[in-house]
Formats: sequence, C-alpha cells, structure tokens
Amino acid sequence: MKIPDHRRRLERLLAMVPVPQVLVTDPEDIRWLTGFTGSNGWVLASSEGTLLVTDGRYVDQATAQCAEAGTRIEFAGGRSEMIGILTNSVTDELGFQDDRMTVSVHREISNRIDRLVPIGQDVRELRREKDPTEIETIARAARIADSALSECADHIVPGRSEREIRDALESAMRRHGADGPSYETIVATGATNSARPHHRPNDTILREGDSVVIDVGALVDGYHSDMTRTFLLGEVESELAGWWDLVLEAQDAGCRTVGPGVAAREVDEACRRVFRAAGVEDRFVHGTGHGVGLLIHEEPYIGRNSPAILRPGDVVTVEPGLYRDGLGGIRIEDLLVVTENGFDRLTGSDKTPR
Amino acid sequence: MKIPDHRRRLERLLAMVPVPQVLVTDPEDIRWLTGFTGSNGWVLASSEGTLLVTDGRYVDQATAQCAEAGTRIEFAGGRSEMIGILTNSVTDELGFQDDRMTVSVHREISNRIDRLVPIGQDVRELRREKDPTEIETIARAARIADSALSECADHIVPGRSEREIRDALESAMRRHGADGPSYETIVATGATNSARPHHRPNDTILREGDSVVIDVGALVDGYHSDMTRTFLLGEVESELAGWWDLVLEAQDAGCRTVGPGVAAREVDEACRRVFRAAGVEDRFVHGTGHGVGLLIHEEPYIGRNSPAILRPGDVVTVEPGLYRDGLGGIRIEDLLVVTENGFDRLTGSDKTPR
Repeated sequence: MKIPDHRRRLERLLAMVPVPQVLVTDPEDIRWLTGFTGSNGWVLASSEGTLLVTDGRYVDQATAQCAEAGTRIEFAGGRSEMIGILTNSVTDELGFQDDRMTVSVHREISNRIDRLVPIGQDVRELRREKDPTEIETIARAARIADSALSECADHIVPGRSEREIRDALESAMRRHGADGPSYETIVATGATNSARPHHRPNDTILREGDSVVIDVGALVDGYHSDMTRTFLLGEVESELAGWWDLVLEAQDAGCRTVGPGVAAREVDEACRRVFRAAGVEDRFVHGTGHGVGLLIHEEPYIGRNSPAILRPGDVVTVEPGLYRDGLGGIRIEDLLVVTENGFDRLTGSDKTPR
Repeated sequence: MKIPDHRRRLERLLAMVPVPQVLVTDPEDIRWLTGFTGSNGWVLASSEGTLLVTDGRYVDQATAQCAEAGTRIEFAGGRSEMIGILTNSVTDELGFQDDRMTVSVHREISNRIDRLVPIGQDVRELRREKDPTEIETIARAARIADSALSECADHIVPGRSEREIRDALESAMRRHGADGPSYETIVATGATNSARPHHRPNDTILREGDSVVIDVGALVDGYHSDMTRTFLLGEVESELAGWWDLVLEAQDAGCRTVGPGVAAREVDEACRRVFRAAGVEDRFVHGTGHGVGLLIHEEPYIGRNSPAILRPGDVVTVEPGLYRDGLGGIRIEDLLVVTENGFDRLTGSDKTPR
C-alpha cells in the first residue's frame, strides 16, 4: 500500500491561504492532514507541522493514527481547555474555516485571539486533487462494489424485494473487504420508486416490466465509491426501453468529454445535448456529477452552472438519468479519475440492462 | 402508531426562548419540529407555525413528511435565495442556534437582519423529554436489537470473527424492521480489543478465555437504541470473571438509582461506589451514560460532573465498564426511560455471561 505524503498535503494547505497558521476544524480535512478519525479534535497547521488537540478517549487511537504524519498531539479535558492549548500555540494571524466553525466556537476563540482570518473559501478545494494513494483506495472501493453487484446478479429478478437486494449487496461488499456501504444503497424498482432519484429501499417486490435502479458504492479507509446501473426486467414499455438507450448514450457522451482542462459544465452539456435532441431534457432532474473522496459529495460539481475546470487527480461521477412518476426511472453512473491525457474509469460493472 | 403532537413541540421551543421567532438549523431539531429529514433545509418557527425552506430536490419528500405538522414549505435554488425567503418572513428579533450555525452563514444572514439573538444554550435540551410517540419508537428499536442478539447467540462462540458477528447482528436487525444499526455495532473480543471501549470489529477470531463486548442498537424512524452485553467464553481469568460480577453489580446499582428528581451524577456515583470499594475505579474510563433519541448521544449526560436532574421522559443509558489492555474489558448497558415513579427498562436481553 502506498503511504500518503502528509508533508505535501500540509504544504498544499499553507499555499492556499494568506496566513501562516490555520485552525482546521473540518473532520475530513483533519483526517486528510493527520490520519486522525476521532469525533472530537482540532488541528493547528503551520510550516512547523500539525498539532492535534483531542480528548482523553483518543490517546491510543490518535497516537496510532497520527504516527505517519508526525503530528504532535495534546489532550484536553473539554472545549475551553482545547481552545486554550491551541491558542497558546498561535503566534500570528490565525486562519479559520468560517464554513466549518459554529458561531459559538468562534466567539470563544475570539475571546483569546484577535487576529482571526476567515479562509473557508480559500481551502474549499483542499482535498480536490487526489494523490496516488487516494486514487488507489477509491479504485479498490469501486472494485469491491463491482464484485458485489456481479455476485448479487441472481437476486435482481422478479419476486425479490428492494430490501433483500440492498442487504445482499451491502453484505457482499463487507465480505469483499469494505468497511461498509459508501452511502445507503439505493434499490428502486417500478414506475413509482425508480422515478425517485433518492428512493430508500423498502419491501416493494421486483416485477416483470420494471426498471430497477441500483446505486451502490463501498467505503474503504474513509474513501467512497459511487456507481449506478439500471436493469430492465423482461418486457418493459417501449418508452422506458428507449430512455435506457438514451441514458446510456448521454452517459457515454458525458464520459468521453472528461479530461484535463475541460469545463465541468461541458460534461453536463454533453449529457444534456442527447436528452435535448430527444425532447426529454426536462426529465433529467439532477446534476450530472460530483467529486468523490473522503465525502461522497465534494468538489468539483458537474452541472449547468459549475465553474470548475477539470484537473488531473479529480475523481468525479458522470450520472445522467431520466425520471417520470408512473413510468419509472433510468440512471447510469460511472466513477472516473481525470488523468494527464483523459480519464480512467474506476467502476467496471457491465451495463447490459438484462 | 401514535402521532407526534407537533404543535406542542413548537410551543415547547417558543417557551424556551426570549424571542418571538427562531431560525432552526439543527437537522434533528428540524425533523422533530416538522418531520422533514432532507439534507438541506432550515425552519423558521413562530407562534404562527413552522416554515420550511428547502430546495427543489425535496418537493415530494417535504410535502409528504411535513403534512402532519402542517408546516408551510417554500423552495429555493440556493443558499442566498433560502436566506432571502426566510428573512423576508422575519418581523422582529430572530433567535438563531449559535452552536448550530457556521460563521459564514451567520455573516450572510447578518447582512439581511439586524436583530439576531443567540439561543443555542436556551434550546440545548429542546428534545430531551421524550413524548409517548418517541418512547414507543425507541422501545421498538430496543426490542429489535434484543431479537437480533438473541437470534445471533449461536454465533458468539470461539472460532467466529468479530466482523461475522457484527454482520449477523446488523442483518438480523434489518430483518426485524430496523432501518439500520443505530451506530456501528461493536464486537470486541480478547485481552486487547475488548479493552478498547470503541473498538471497531475486525477479523479477530473469538477464542476460549475471551471476554466479548457487544454494543448494539437499532435505528427506527430516526430514533436510536443502545445496549451492551459482555459474554465470557469458557474459562476466563479469575480477575476478569470478578470484574464481570462487579460491572453487573455497578450497573444494577446505577439503574436502581434512576428516577425523577434524581441528580444524574448520583447515578454515576452509584456505579462508581461499587468500583471504588473494589479498588478498580481507575479502570472505569468513560461516563456512566447519556440521553438517546434522534441522536445516539444527547442530553442528559450522566457523569461525575453532570448538572442534570432526571425528569420523566428522559431516555438514558446506564453503562459502567472496566478495561485493562492485556486483560480485557467488561461493559453492561441498558436503556431506561424515566417515569413518574422510577424507570422502565427498554432493553430486555438476558445478561448471563455464557
């Protein structure tokens, strides 16, 4: 396994901000900078390194998790002691994540420090470009979801319930080494459920003529994968079958657009163009994609108004879909990593609808 | 199923604050007041009722979920539009949850409204006293975990792995109607793993002589349950066997202390007294308990320095434990609801260690 280069991550953070010291309060940023995954803790980052302050429950865990990053660790009994330790180490202007700090914490810190500088916007894309360790982990998560879906293919037949399929997929992912599902697996069947992009699996039984949307990902070492396939059970309405072909065409067009220097909204437009030509653009009710990493939804977002330009190291979904209550829904989604020359596809499951 | 009395909940909120209108930004408080569970949305609460502002993804969901509460719903395209709609409805001083609002959101709202009053502390215990609907739901979650543990008893034997037991428990809870586990189920076996209160299940195999700590709860309609049992596999070291008896004695003493008007720290002291008499108080490394509801950890907390006085409707854990790396750990936990006369126990699993 590759080892993350924590020093390089710290340097990336410091290069983004106009201050010499940063108080990091976002849990994923803390994990990314130091390895620490506890539920309580803040990090002070400066050119001298990272200092984690957490509480006594995490003595062993913090010591083990932060060893690689070389983070210095101190322990505090409560929030005001935490703030005391952190502010004692502040020598200059202190950057803080104004979009990741509550008003009440800010008030408490302001009582101790004058020169607080909001840097939330500056570091919004801190974790955006994935390094080789991260890409390897996400790829592993994607392969686990592939294996689970292939193993559960026999379950996706008339007579089974959405819940059964969800349970089978999640249990298969764990068996293949996932820490759990990346998000609650979506299994949505039939004219009503599959028409809801975020349907939650229930006891609905799969029937002949249904489209079945399966949106599944694995969680590995904190990293997520994300993939959707739509299956058609037996003979489906011709309109729905036509939608399936359109969504595949749109998804393929979207993926082929992905590459370094490409505007995210161009990827969205490539999908949308296919739907527009077929007169169904209004049935595409969500964005085309999003970044994936320590969060299942993160920068960069791919939609009509996205400002992002894709860069090597971006890991993004491309997931157009069409939905109409009473007819059903179709979505096809892959997870891609942007490379120097184009993209690699991290999800590999077959797309055949039956 | 009983129906929550949303009007009464709104009145409870308004009685806690010195302002006529409150902007509710805590997701669990929003769910409790309106029924809405979407990931994006804020609520304006006043004597006129509740107004939810969310985005277009949630049109169907918000309409369905808020019907009972009679919440008015509006939709906005982005955060600044959300803030616009909400602030247009503000006529007077506006209370806001300063411990549940980021500095950047506060800045944006301050630009539109002058009279912002922090009320985080005032409403910290908003959801503390559970109403009959809530108690019924938590009791159902507790019964599901009981059934799962009883069903999986055959798995808790030498030769099985922690992970296998975790998967069996979580799958059984789902089969019995849970929406999922209440938190990641803890299965911790042997001298090292069971000595860690928050151990994460891995491939460690259960062996003769191990103590096995199993901490399991179910999630039902957003409400959590919480329970721990410790099993002893075959002949264990006599010190560990002695600890098991001590923990049971402490847990029983703690539970018997619970009742209306009792100081939470008295419950803690009742457990601690047993350990102190045996000279092992330093091995009790965490608090005695916590409230449980829409969050797995919420008010009131039961520990040495807890200020809380227990009241009817409080749902709390009592979970003393002893831990030493190299020997192992023991924890026994029940979930109780405080009643007018004492308490009811919501968790019912047998405590026999073998």
